[in-house]
Amino acid sequence: MQTTRTQVAIIGAGPSGLLLGQLLHKNGIDAVIVERVSGDYVLGRIRAGILEQVTIDLMDEAGVGQRMHAEGLVHDGIEMLYNGARHRVDLKKYSGGKHVMVYGQTELTRDLMQARAAAGLPTIYEAKNTAVHDFDTAKPYVTYEKDGQQHRIDCDFIAGCDGFHGVCRASAPRSAIHEFEKVYPFGWLGLLSDTPPVSDELIYVNSPRGFALCSQRSATRSRYYLQVPLTDKVEEWSDDAFWQELKLRLDDEARERLVTGPSIEKSIAPLRSFVTEPLRFGRMFLAGDAGHIVPPTGAKGLNLAATDVKYLLDALVDFYKDHSEAGIDDYSRKCLARIWRAERFSWWFTQLMHRFPHDDQITAKFQTAELDYLLNSEAGLTTIAENYVGLPLAFGSPP
Amino acid sequence: MQTTRTQVAIIGAGPSGLLLGQLLHKNGIDAVIVERVSGDYVLGRIRAGILEQVTIDLMDEAGVGQRMHAEGLVHDGIEMLYNGARHRVDLKKYSGGKHVMVYGQTELTRDLMQARAAAGLPTIYEAKNTAVHDFDTAKPYVTYEKDGQQHRIDCDFIAGCDGFHGVCRASAPRSAIHEFEKVYPFGWLGLLSDTPPVSDELIYVNSPRGFALCSQRSATRSRYYLQVPLTDKVEEWSDDAFWQELKLRLDDEARERLVTGPSIEKSIAPLRSFVTEPLRFGRMFLAGDAGHIVPPTGAKGLNLAATDVKYLLDALVDFYKDHSEAGIDDYSRKCLARIWRAERFSWWFTQLMHRFPHDDQITAKFQTAELDYLLNSEAGLTTIAENYVGLPLAFGSPP
Repeated sequence: MQTTRTQVAIIGAGPSGLLLGQLLHKNGIDAVIVERVSGDYVLGRIRAGILEQVTIDLMDEAGVGQRMHAEGLVHDGIEMLYNGARHRVDLKKYSGGKHVMVYGQTELTRDLMQARAAAGLPTIYEAKNTAVHDFDTAKPYVTYEKDGQQHRIDCDFIAGCDGFHGVCRASAPRSAIHEFEKVYPFGWLGLLSDTPPVSDELIYVNSPRGFALCSQRSATRSRYYLQVPLTDKVEEWSDDAFWQELKLRLDDEARERLVTGPSIEKSIAPLRSFVTEPLRFGRMFLAGDAGHIVPPTGAKGLNLAATDVKYLLDALVDFYKDHSEAGIDDYSRKCLARIWRAERFSWWFTQLMHRFPHDDQITAKFQTAELDYLLNSEAGLTTIAENYVGLPLAFGSPP
Repeated sequence: MQTTRTQVAIIGAGPSGLLLGQLLHKNGIDAVIVERVSGDYVLGRIRAGILEQVTIDLMDEAGVGQRMHAEGLVHDGIEMLYNGARHRVDLKKYSGGKHVMVYGQTELTRDLMQARAAAGLPTIYEAKNTAVHDFDTAKPYVTYEKDGQQHRIDCDFIAGCDGFHGVCRASAPRSAIHEFEKVYPFGWLGLLSDTPPVSDELIYVNSPRGFALCSQRSATRSRYYLQVPLTDKVEEWSDDAFWQELKLRLDDEARERLVTGPSIEKSIAPLRSFVTEPLRFGRMFLAGDAGHIVPPTGAKGLNLAATDVKYLLDALVDFYKDHSEAGIDDYSRKCLARIWRAERFSWWFTQLMHRFPHDDQITAKFQTAELDYLLNSEAGLTTIAENYVGLPLAFGSPP
């Protein structure tokens, strides 16, 4: 058994873990990251691509925002298509000047990996059988296997950034944890292609044939999604079939402008709402997907993870610099207040835009009436915009 | 067979029919009202009690607003109770200066009946076997029996103000009609008592034990509601049991202030969303509950009926004064645009405030998160306020 020591052992080298590691480093706090798979595998996962200001700010704070600012696309609005017509939500106007940035999670992860490597900070990839221990004491530790060798990391804190299927949440005592979950009765079939996006902005589509989303990663790379039954298999969807179905869900203008091409990636993802309460168990914290999942409709997953990381960083800095445990004690409450707001928005936006298998006809009418109301009311437009760009961190606090 | 002639035969002497009759009279258009039950029976029905400005204005236009203004209570806000705490929605502030008026539908109906009687306008109560004929021609007519005698009214138009179970909608050709419906899996147990209201304003309650509403008819008459299972029978609910359950759903302050007393009336009403499309069949129009039902949560039923009446009046005045059929042709579209918005709000507000039998735990969390968002956001508060006081008649029209 090889034993090392660090201040914070981070489980998971996805964006949460990497961002936390980088921010801790900037603040003079040591961390080791332990990751189950390889770096290439992490980079191969196709995920979200919409950054809120809070995420952009954290990337800057971590000193890794340069390429993001150079290549990311600032979006001041989104489009919503229903009843065959498109309506624009002016995010900038209705959120008091805010916007979002299109920058793939893959790119953000790559920037963080490169910065970590450049700084010579330790990341253990392909660590097997990782386990977390004694986090209910002041001396937690992590064990794992690598190349047939047993390893142990003694630490002050464990940051569980290891996703929905990770070991950290699974290691929390069952009696101390409350899980809330909703699984949606459909999936998103996503297709990535090196074709110019059909529109400068994202188009969210409520069609009688189901939801669709025209998204993008850059000016030359598009990401499209179709709502599909959970029983569909990705092998059954040829590229041609995908493009044909997408066209049927679009308006005439978009149908005409759509440039199709071979898929680079194609996959079906389930949709889930999931929250763990609490997010702290003694000296172990859950951050990002380890503690909560949103359906992707509101583009909130990565941004929520970034907020967790921010609150966790603040708590750890308070601990090491000011010897205060206040931030640690308040971590769960602060995160969950924001998480539930984003969960609520993601659930609501999902309900508004998808067809559910057992919906009656009046439900489709309610959807149309709700869109008609929201897109014709300044207040309605504001509720969409302020949630989409991300509610202020101080939202709901006494003024 | 006794035959008479009028311009507009109105079926139903509830508030829609009476209001339409009065407004037609003010505009020099003749109408006869045919009603299945007695006037006393109509007045015995306990219904809504919240008037929007559009309804107040129509009562004034009909010349019957005097007592309403003297006795009605202007409400500038409502209270919402969840997680044990009350939050006020300042309707006036967030709707640009509008308010609602508490004035029982029974009182409004009484005012209209008295004005109709004073003007000597014909209302046939206790008409049996009413039937509507030939409304797909320019010469429709109505038949009914009264005191063993057959009667016939020849007319230009038939106004179906005869409620959800009325003969008019039932007489429209099945092939021409589309009905949308949602029945909710609970009812409202209402209790009327001569006790002072627990609060100056209405309190809408989302409690783990179910929805409750503290409403009122005057400074000395209260109307309280409890969400109950549809299987409950009103005979099983003693007054004591009602008050006890209500207290369990209130906050400490309200629990202490609540004045209980014997019930004057107690009943269980089902909750339903229902819309008929279209609302015009040749020379017959549906108005009010004959064409649509909302759950009572948003207090929209009577107010929607009033808007139908307004649009129908405008259409008939156009026809008789300007010989234009434009208003008639547009009646259904104009009404339905407003109806769907109110249906949407009533459905949404019902979902937000009630516990549904099959809800999982996450749904209650979403409700709380939605209330937390709405009541902490200026835009959120505005969406509640502007819908509650009634969206402008011109809502959604190009500016």
